[in-house]
Amino acid sequence: MVRSDIAWSSADRIVVRGLDLPSEVLGHMDLAAFSFLQLTGRCPTEEQARVYNALLITLVEHGITPSALAARLTYAGAPESPQAAVAAGLCGLGSVFVGSTEGVAVMLAGELDGAADDLDLGAAAGRIVAAHWAAGTPVPGVGHPFHKPIDPRTPRLFEIARECGLHGRYVALMELVGAEAERVSGRRLPVNATGAIGALSGELGLPVKAVRGLGVMARAIGLVGHILEESERPMAGGIWRRADLEASAHLAEQEQDREKR
Amino acid sequence: MVRSDIAWSSADRIVVRGLDLPSEVLGHMDLAAFSFLQLTGRCPTEEQARVYNALLITLVEHGITPSALAARLTYAGAPESPQAAVAAGLCGLGSVFVGSTEGVAVMLAGELDGAADDLDLGAAAGRIVAAHWAAGTPVPGVGHPFHKPIDPRTPRLFEIARECGLHGRYVALMELVGAEAERVSGRRLPVNATGAIGALSGELGLPVKAVRGLGVMARAIGLVGHILEESERPMAGGIWRRADLEASAHLAEQEQDREKR
Amino acid sequence: MVRSDIAWSSADRIVVRGLDLPSEVLGHMDLAAFSFLQLTGRCPTEEQARVYNALLITLVEHGITPSALAARLTYAGAPESPQAAVAAGLCGLGSVFVGSTEGVAVMLAGELDGAADDLDLGAAAGRIVAAHWAAGTPVPGVGHPFHKPIDPRTPRLFEIARECGLHGRYVALMELVGAEAERVSGRRLPVNATGAIGALSGELGLPVKAVRGLGVMARAIGLVGHILEESERPMAGGIWRRADLEASAHLAEQEQDREKR
Amino acid sequence: MVRSDIAWSSADRIVVRGLDLPSEVLGHMDLAAFSFLQLTGRCPTEEQARVYNALLITLVEHGITPSALAARLTYAGAPESPQAAVAAGLCGLGSVFVGSTEGVAVMLAGELDGAADDLDLGAAAGRIVAAHWAAGTPVPGVGHPFHKPIDPRTPRLFEIARECGLHGRYVALMELVGAEAERVSGRRLPVNATGAIGALSGELGLPVKAVRGLGVMARAIGLVGHILEESERPMAGGIWRRADLEASAHLAEQEQDREKR
Repeated sequence: MVRSDIAWSSADRIVVRGLDLPSEVLGHMDLAAFSFLQLTGRCPTEEQARVYNALLITLVEHGITPSALAARLTYAGAPESPQAAVAAGLCGLGSVFVGSTEGVAVMLAGELDGAADDLDLGAAAGRIVAAHWAAGTPVPGVGHPFHKPIDPRTPRLFEIARECGLHGRYVALMELVGAEAERVSGRRLPVNATGAIGALSGELGLPVKAVRGLGVMARAIGLVGHILEESERPMAGGIWRRADLEASAHLAEQEQDREKR
Repeated sequence: MVRSDIAWSSADRIVVRGLDLPSEVLGHMDLAAFSFLQLTGRCPTEEQARVYNALLITLVEHGITPSALAARLTYAGAPESPQAAVAAGLCGLGSVFVGSTEGVAVMLAGELDGAADDLDLGAAAGRIVAAHWAAGTPVPGVGHPFHKPIDPRTPRLFEIARECGLHGRYVALMELVGAEAERVSGRRLPVNATGAIGALSGELGLPVKAVRGLGVMARAIGLVGHILEESERPMAGGIWRRADLEASAHLAEQEQDREKR
Repeated sequence: MVRSDIAWSSADRIVVRGLDLPSEVLGHMDLAAFSFLQLTGRCPTEEQARVYNALLITLVEHGITPSALAARLTYAGAPESPQAAVAAGLCGLGSVFVGSTEGVAVMLAGELDGAADDLDLGAAAGRIVAAHWAAGTPVPGVGHPFHKPIDPRTPRLFEIARECGLHGRYVALMELVGAEAERVSGRRLPVNATGAIGALSGELGLPVKAVRGLGVMARAIGLVGHILEESERPMAGGIWRRADLEASAHLAEQEQDREKR
Repeated sequence: MVRSDIAWSSADRIVVRGLDLPSEVLGHMDLAAFSFLQLTGRCPTEEQARVYNALLITLVEHGITPSALAARLTYAGAPESPQAAVAAGLCGLGSVFVGSTEGVAVMLAGELDGAADDLDLGAAAGRIVAAHWAAGTPVPGVGHPFHKPIDPRTPRLFEIARECGLHGRYVALMELVGAEAERVSGRRLPVNATGAIGALSGELGLPVKAVRGLGVMARAIGLVGHILEESERPMAGGIWRRADLEASAHLAEQEQDREKR
């Protein structure tokens, strides 16, 4: 009933996913490759590891996000628990932000997982865009409110994938979805980093369920960096005081008006 | 090994701390009284319940705190998980904010727990203030950066305690500590809400370890209110965008300077 | 942009939802009534407060739940951060456990919010059960895997509601849903505590979005109790060691077999 | 006031720690190296990156820990929020488990940071052990309850460090501390993985404050793996039911005894 295939250890051994940690992993694998092993039970090829490293790095640091702010504000109240500050930051990686990569992975897997070799990708892109158009929901993975005309991460991620021979049907379908979304909407909607990451997850054979986890573990790294900076040059106190004053200014004014009368 | 004295149930019964939940608790106790039972195994007297209700209410809502902001920012990213937003808000209730009540409780318990009936409270207050003075650390529970000249919650909490016959040695010692701190520092340092809550926890016979928990459970109520308001009139997005722009403005400027040259 | 209607304070005042905290709240309201005010901006009537207290108390303590275990295991690793242990426990109050009350509230609100006075409740119950039957999803709020033949909390909660004049259409519809579900399925499916709480939330006029929050804040109280007990008589270590050994026993065996050959 | 030196972006650029993410980072750095940059603002040398990768990998996966259990139990209640399950798992990485690496780093930094080139390391080890002996606290980083006679990770980590020319005074002092602790206590107390990681953090020039963060970010990777396995082959339900039954068995028995009388 209580069973895990991930790791076991004895007095003199530590084995993770079938590899002896000291002799077969340490010094032989990089962190991302080991995380690939931890998640899938497979060692990535050198090419897969290169693409996977790039994919994860893309997810580490996105500036002063709501998640980074939540972590920094938490640290301000409990500096003795930096792990809880990172945890607070991770709690917000849901449907709106990092979770959106999962939406792309699900969308692409819906057409490609188990598909015949001669699947018409153009037709698949058409089906995807039409379904979103009919439902009135935005196509995930295309367009960006800020990075225009294109998200500079996407061409680079796809270039690395091409160099590594991992520029297959998931990338092709994602690009076709972007083109079709542009055609239907009449707007510029190039593939964004979320779309690129969702597509590369498919190329790497990662289970759809793992995709949100990629963002969670990468962002944990980013958040540790933010907490460290917050410990040296804090911004939480300033943000707090400003928000607190501003938020209740209208109530304080109402009270003054009442007292005057 | 795995043993808990809190609750048990069978097909037709639910018993918490020895009371039958449906017939002996529901409709007979208020939420705070039940929480007193949950924490201590004892039903509070009516007087204890009144003081305890006031104490907990004091901890529920403190405006747009770092904790409320962390919860709201988390909700913005994962609105499908309001429980995680509350959790993120609680993570910051550490040594700096809500945890400070624990410091007061420890300070008072150090003199009063197991003390003789004729303990000289004035001398005890002197020892406490002198020890903090010598260590160069502020005396907890006195003074307030914002509520001046006095924290309006303290006299009211102590008034309720007096009405309930719970204005004993913990309250008296806390007040003497405030007076002594004023004498030694030459500054106005009246007992603040933190000091009042720490003192009343002692009057209620709550274990020192439970005191931080009072703030955690009360603030959970406050945070649910903040999340609900955030779902109707959000502030997280505005705070985020402003902070993100402002935080990196100097880096963007440096880059422009570099490009000009 | 950054605006909250919950609270404001000045040097000598603290106002929550329009009430002066020291003079109008402390000593006059109980914790649950104050939470009702915090969430809705309205003071509950005495009857509403009684029902609401019973509803919240029902949610506080459910034994050694996954949530209580998560909190206790977290405390074992970071006893200096009890607030983070409570937070960890709250993170699991999602779709499977406490979040299910929200499902009931949504289900009832779908028929009753804005409904005409002469709505046929029996027909509404029929629609609800038929829709779930057609979708192959269980009707929320009825039946219980353990409390049989009935959940002992439900009759008591409804009795209190009746005494308080809050036994209206939400309760009636919930009971009809239970009866209809029994008729359609041929199984005993009486209204459980989740169903009762969802119905009473409707009677109290609480917004559907607030309902999961009730469980979150009530359970925070329960979790503080569990952490306190864990600090005195720990179970986390035992559960951990047993699970760790058991989980990897098959891997250790495989290794021994390999070495023998 | 609100200022961060970590990252900035414009419509066509994304810059982290002064490097252009698409052209200078992606495809050129591995994840661990990028995390080193994120935390310290410096790119690691190839040797530093190799040691740092090994150090982080060592922290990823430690079997069915309390942290992994908390994550899995949280996932069981809120499978729609895997990020919150990881967060719950991180909340317990405090003083007892992963936080202990920080203790080693602080201990070594106390002797080595800013020390003269000719510091007598043997004397420093003597001071460290004597101070712990006098305080009655265990020396961190030595001995292991389970891995005996030696922790198999330590010799391998130190071997990699030696190959990379990073086997300097921090490693030497840690080894001397182990030897001295053995001499004073008369027990086998070789350097464990915690001690090795604390020492290597010093060799890498990481700030002491960053050390707990290493464990937090590495363990986030491990927890994603556990959640993924839990989604496929759950253990949380079984652990819960067993613990719940066992924990309250004595209360149920007491009740039966009472009813018999």
